[in-house]
Amino acid sequence: MNGQKAYWIWYPGDLELYHALRQNFSRVERGCAWPAFWKSDGFRQRVTYRRSYDLARPETFTVTGGPDTIGYVLVNDRKYPLGALVSCPAGKVRISVHAACIGCVPAVYVDGENVFSDSGWTAEDYCLPPVQAACSRYFTLPGQRIDQWPMLEKVYAPIRAEEVNGGALFTFETELTARLHIVPRIPGRMPGEVFLGESREEALAGSACYFSCKPDPETGLTPRQAMRFAYLPGAGPEDVCVRARHQYVDIPVRARFVCDDETLNRIFEVAAHTFSLCCDVFFLDGVKRDKWIWGGDAYQSLFVNRYLTGDREIEQRTLIALRGNDPPLTHVNTIVDYSLLWILGTAEHALAYRDEAFLSHMLPRMESLMELLLSQRDENGFLIGRKGDWIYVDWAEFDRDGPLCAEQMLLAAALSVMARLSASDKARMYRETARRLTDAIEEYFWDEEKQAYVDSWTSGRRAVTRHAAILAIVFDLVPQARKRRIAETVLFNDDVPPITTPYFRFFELDALCRMGYLKEVLDQIRAYWGGMLDAGVATFWEEYDPQKPAAQQYAMYGDPFGKSLCHAWAASPIYLLARYFIGLSPDPSAPDGWRFDPPEGFFSEVSCEFPAGPKNIRIALKEGKWSRTSEIYGKD
Amino acid sequence: MNGQKAYWIWYPGDLELYHALRQNFSRVERGCAWPAFWKSDGFRQRVTYRRSYDLARPETFTVTGGPDTIGYVLVNDRKYPLGALVSCPAGKVRISVHAACIGCVPAVYVDGENVFSDSGWTAEDYCLPPVQAACSRYFTLPGQRIDQWPMLEKVYAPIRAEEVNGGALFTFETELTARLHIVPRIPGRMPGEVFLGESREEALAGSACYFSCKPDPETGLTPRQAMRFAYLPGAGPEDVCVRARHQYVDIPVRARFVCDDETLNRIFEVAAHTFSLCCDVFFLDGVKRDKWIWGGDAYQSLFVNRYLTGDREIEQRTLIALRGNDPPLTHVNTIVDYSLLWILGTAEHALAYRDEAFLSHMLPRMESLMELLLSQRDENGFLIGRKGDWIYVDWAEFDRDGPLCAEQMLLAAALSVMARLSASDKARMYRETARRLTDAIEEYFWDEEKQAYVDSWTSGRRAVTRHAAILAIVFDLVPQARKRRIAETVLFNDDVPPITTPYFRFFELDALCRMGYLKEVLDQIRAYWGGMLDAGVATFWEEYDPQKPAAQQYAMYGDPFGKSLCHAWAASPIYLLARYFIGLSPDPSAPDGWRFDPPEGFFSEVSCEFPAGPKNIRIALKEGKWSRTSEIYGKD
Repeated sequence: MNGQKAYWIWYPGDLELYHALRQNFSRVERGCAWPAFWKSDGFRQRVTYRRSYDLARPETFTVTGGPDTIGYVLVNDRKYPLGALVSCPAGKVRISVHAACIGCVPAVYVDGENVFSDSGWTAEDYCLPPVQAACSRYFTLPGQRIDQWPMLEKVYAPIRAEEVNGGALFTFETELTARLHIVPRIPGRMPGEVFLGESREEALAGSACYFSCKPDPETGLTPRQAMRFAYLPGAGPEDVCVRARHQYVDIPVRARFVCDDETLNRIFEVAAHTFSLCCDVFFLDGVKRDKWIWGGDAYQSLFVNRYLTGDREIEQRTLIALRGNDPPLTHVNTIVDYSLLWILGTAEHALAYRDEAFLSHMLPRMESLMELLLSQRDENGFLIGRKGDWIYVDWAEFDRDGPLCAEQMLLAAALSVMARLSASDKARMYRETARRLTDAIEEYFWDEEKQAYVDSWTSGRRAVTRHAAILAIVFDLVPQARKRRIAETVLFNDDVPPITTPYFRFFELDALCRMGYLKEVLDQIRAYWGGMLDAGVATFWEEYDPQKPAAQQYAMYGDPFGKSLCHAWAASPIYLLARYFIGLSPDPSAPDGWRFDPPEGFFSEVSCEFPAGPKNIRIALKEGKWSRTSEIYGKD
Repeated sequence: MNGQKAYWIWYPGDLELYHALRQNFSRVERGCAWPAFWKSDGFRQRVTYRRSYDLARPETFTVTGGPDTIGYVLVNDRKYPLGALVSCPAGKVRISVHAACIGCVPAVYVDGENVFSDSGWTAEDYCLPPVQAACSRYFTLPGQRIDQWPMLEKVYAPIRAEEVNGGALFTFETELTARLHIVPRIPGRMPGEVFLGESREEALAGSACYFSCKPDPETGLTPRQAMRFAYLPGAGPEDVCVRARHQYVDIPVRARFVCDDETLNRIFEVAAHTFSLCCDVFFLDGVKRDKWIWGGDAYQSLFVNRYLTGDREIEQRTLIALRGNDPPLTHVNTIVDYSLLWILGTAEHALAYRDEAFLSHMLPRMESLMELLLSQRDENGFLIGRKGDWIYVDWAEFDRDGPLCAEQMLLAAALSVMARLSASDKARMYRETARRLTDAIEEYFWDEEKQAYVDSWTSGRRAVTRHAAILAIVFDLVPQARKRRIAETVLFNDDVPPITTPYFRFFELDALCRMGYLKEVLDQIRAYWGGMLDAGVATFWEEYDPQKPAAQQYAMYGDPFGKSLCHAWAASPIYLLARYFIGLSPDPSAPDGWRFDPPEGFFSEVSCEFPAGPKNIRIALKEGKWSRTSEIYGKD
């Protein structure tokens, strides 16, 4: 525990659920708060913490509760109020802290010489057996408010101030998640309104701008909000001093990627910057929009994050927040495939970090979610949606008649993973179910003539899209020969409609890499991400199509400024480059958890660094020779 | 809806769950907050409300959220922030209000000419199908805070002020739930501390007193707390002006009981006063202690309440609060028999008030709770506790080896009730299960030699207590001949240990009445409750034993002032007198829901009144003739 002594403690998962509520309720657009449209799971309002000690000497300690937390401390049979100085006798003592709070997590902080709160305490919710209390390096101070996630702050001055249409437009060097601090040169002349934008166009778009606000008349501060441009109508650039207080969660970027291709270096750098901005308390899809915690986006973020920051905590926070409480009644974000990706992502996380404690906390939740999924199969064993469920997979024109093939591929993948992780009896059931499912996919969805999987077997239309093939390859659901076949008949077949979303492009590029089409993928990285760089972006966009007219570049989802210009899934080159072009992949059997197997022929020089637990792996290619060393991170 | 137009609306059950958290977290004893020690179910933090209108003219309306509630209003496809003036076009409009709040129920108030919030709206939680939104006559004003239950206030002056041990003791005419208002005669000389008591002894007991506090130095107010005596150490009776602001939920007593026996009249009156004080937002066990919502106490309150106030809402609030959310993971207050009493009580409530809407809301919850109960049966079909479950039944010396007979009786009763209420398929299952269970009770627990049910069939000790026999009679689980037999062999057998708790005395007296032993019951009422009156009580106590030495009269649960001196279950004479001695019992087939069948020979004159929906039934006995009329309540 890094030498830190006392920690705030809470019931495992509850602080995540509380802050997930805050996160999912934080979206504001054009003056309207827009809380996420799915079931939002709450936290436990009543928890008891316990620990026994054997003390050499009597000592005193205090117990503080979080905001509005009430309760008492019991030392053997003696009661004390929260906040009081507690006298603890020498010898064997049983201590319990009874805490309750309606509006926030009933966390407590026990502060004494030998008696102090950390994960050595148990937590009880009067329903499940006692569990180990949870704590975090972010919450270690007695006076801290656990309803506020601690942020670091960096102050940015604008790189440009100009007069536009009788107002002042301020430009910052990059997108930020910041509170503006506005100080009028003439005291008392605080500007009435500020329009923020990810683009210059958005900030100047008046009422079409996503986010505008009135600075606090006293402090000149605005709410924390994503922005790169700030427009103050009616103000001259010289009338005000404007600073952006960028507020961010302390998650350092630990990776470095330098090769002899400057475009790739710059792509990695901008991807790292983009992704870093999207790492808040949870993985966000984008910094401006939605700021809701989405399972599909988070799944991809897991792959980027492990190469970029190696911060397991943000992964665990996000996975816990997405999953909610047991028993699951709805799917992750209401999306059935996001439930499947959640199972796959949680397994991937456990594999990458070899975190047994987290896995044993999550495994029952994975099993209960799988139980829900298996309960909604049709007579052939295919997964279908219940009323209110969303079978998404991708924004693509699927033939959605009956069960969708791609959804079954994800179920087969999730079942295989569960068969690996679960205890013997269940493992057998998962394995058997997976086997029957892959047989049924073969029987119903495989089209011998087209040598491809059809979307729907019920409609008779036998339409083919790329998704089922991609997932079959990525999740290793079919033999190698079949993979090679469908790569030809589907992935390199121009008659099959192309993947149009960067979301699913991630899976497609992954599939291509797995099939060895590295050159093709590198070309795509250079073209798509390099194209964005050429267009002058400071962060990678949710989607980019240079063919679109300038006036539509910022539009998405029917909104003229709907497109996110700093979007987590646009950071996937970090994963693709590190995994397939540097050749570093998670391997639980390797001493530091990583296998290193670089492909030949892409670089003449490389100098990279990636997180591996407490160490950083350093990889270099010099004069035709790869080398791999490692150093404790933060030592130098 | 009583001519009231707009109401605050919320997801059904959620305001009850929110206020139940407040209630169960409100106990404070000797400076320690003591939140209830069971799973505390939360409310939904994200709800959407919807309604369609066909408007003759355009109109404007506003939507207000509760404290900290965020969200937006959607009129067809146009968004408005909460709080804004919303313009609504003529013709068909779809309106939805999207609301979220972490710390309180996301309730909303829609205020317009034709567009306003009431139970005609639907509520959605993104999990279950849409349901009718809930509202209440207590929450009708746009500026109201739904986190504060509205209370009426009545100011009491002390009936006595005296100097005791150098301090001032103030006595009020009765127990109150009040905030004291203390005004020092010399400005600025606010007393430092106040000790409150239900008894004079408690108020004077210093640190042994349950509740003491410092008056607010500015306002002179103390927190709302049960008390009849207030002691201000160091103050003279003339130094301060003290008033008690009794704060209570507006639930009028509608019953009146006058007969030719003054003791019974006075018992009814004090019971009514006692019970009325225990009717807060929920049925409380007692006004000083615990103030937690207990299922067993609430079950008995249902029987008193329907004769005293006829207020169905407090019954429904309490039943909802006790039950929590679906699926149930724990038992009501962790007590397995309280889950059974909850099913029985909810059925009793539905029977008494013929409230189909409430029943259809609760029936799925009754079924899922029964599912939990049935899941924890042993190989013979007997209900047993899981780890953490509490098989309570009563504070009695049961032979608790293996399944307990009384618990099986309650299960049989609950199954019969469910068989009556559920739809055909389930009804058959419940009926069949009940039949098998009663057969098994007969086989394993009936002792032919003792002609009684034994507590335990596994221990071989064949111990007999009264509880199983009482429940078999009360819930009509055995034929009449068997009832008569066990009345003799158990109820009137001095070798069987007597019932020692007033809690279970309720069931025993009920059983005796059902068997026609009215005279014996009336004698007990006169002796026990009349005895309390003779001792000079102003409210009926949790327990009363004139044999105990004076110094121990206030002690209970190992605490010198642990006994509650104003306790709901002590009000049971209201039920016993009204049901068995006036002869008024719920009967769904009767036009006003009540059957009137008075016994002869107990009174020579009677003049009574009891609530029956919108009317009050008036019953009189004059010159040997009973009469029954009814009047709209509140008309005169």
